[in-house]
Amino acid sequence: MVFQLIDSEPVSAHDQRRLHVLGAARSCFARSGFHGASMQQICAEAQMSPGALYRYFPSKDAIIEAIAEEERIQAAACMQALAGGGSIVDRITAVAMDYLRTTRDPATGGLMVEICSESIRNTAVGKRFHEVEKEVRTAFMASLRTAQADGEIDADIDLENALFVLFALGDGLLMRLQIEPEISLESIERYLRRSIAGIFGEPRRGAPN
Amino acid sequence: MVFQLIDSEPVSAHDQRRLHVLGAARSCFARSGFHGASMQQICAEAQMSPGALYRYFPSKDAIIEAIAEEERIQAAACMQALAGGGSIVDRITAVAMDYLRTTRDPATGGLMVEICSESIRNTAVGKRFHEVEKEVRTAFMASLRTAQADGEIDADIDLENALFVLFALGDGLLMRLQIEPEISLESIERYLRRSIAGIFGEPRRGAPN
Repeated sequence: MVFQLIDSEPVSAHDQRRLHVLGAARSCFARSGFHGASMQQICAEAQMSPGALYRYFPSKDAIIEAIAEEERIQAAACMQALAGGGSIVDRITAVAMDYLRTTRDPATGGLMVEICSESIRNTAVGKRFHEVEKEVRTAFMASLRTAQADGEIDADIDLENALFVLFALGDGLLMRLQIEPEISLESIERYLRRSIAGIFGEPRRGAPN
Repeated sequence: MVFQLIDSEPVSAHDQRRLHVLGAARSCFARSGFHGASMQQICAEAQMSPGALYRYFPSKDAIIEAIAEEERIQAAACMQALAGGGSIVDRITAVAMDYLRTTRDPATGGLMVEICSESIRNTAVGKRFHEVEKEVRTAFMASLRTAQADGEIDADIDLENALFVLFALGDGLLMRLQIEPEISLESIERYLRRSIAGIFGEPRRGAPN
């Protein structure tokens, strides 16, 4: 999973410059990959000299680590909707729609594909982002277990396997929405919701048209 | 979508060597990307001299085109299961399981991620593989329209949007199964089927446990 940077409280000039570098680095990584993008390219994208950029990050690894940390914080924020009101299917659909909304810009979507590529190759970068996802998975499992204990999800549903399919759906939609930017998220929401309801077994009569 | 090469009728020595080069090229592209992999790397992987390899393919573009053509042929073969017996949900699940089974090896799965990356960047390679997928989409739409005309799929389902979500699910599962090779395809089949049934609206009582 990958999350777009959102606005937060006012930050110092140093922090603002740091965020500016991270934004530039995300664009470069999305375009050229983690290995393909060089510190020179990131400097050019950020319109900073190498000397200035190195004051914020001593290496490409340090930039990647900072992006992973941003992802971790954003993931935690995104997961809060899971604890909100409505049925478990409503809440998962809301989180999924929020997530997909924040990942429609090419820099974020492209970065996600690069992260997948790193994960498949099981590189250090891939492993680092996999750790971030573990936290997301833990938050989902907690909500699903509660819903199952409350009888909202059938007792015979294997939550781990069901969640695997849900996460695959999220990744696939993110990618497809990048490839076909003319598709509106609203036009597929109904089928996303039906799919989630199918996986977790919401009674059909509870599903909207 | 990306398909693994399957055995077909006996081929000439020339064709065998050609297929050998294509297999080596797939591994290189999966590992290093279409741009990253060089003709030298493909020669090394195929254990052939440049002179020998150039007798089969004059350029990297010619190799990529041959892989796209292989994909087209495999896709057409895979789609035949759609015309088989059983409910529309049964048939889609069967095609999806077949597809995922053939893409579990790292060369095929890795290649798929590279194709996605090319598609997102809308490169010539991305556009070529997008054409292959159009044929798959056409075959799916024909089966879905028949099922809808027969009343098996509700009349108010927008087939294009529903298919978009289905394809996203397929892509995402392919990627996730690459990242987590210890997950068995059988353990997620039930949730894949439930998801498909949810999207296309199979009556719940028709779904197996």
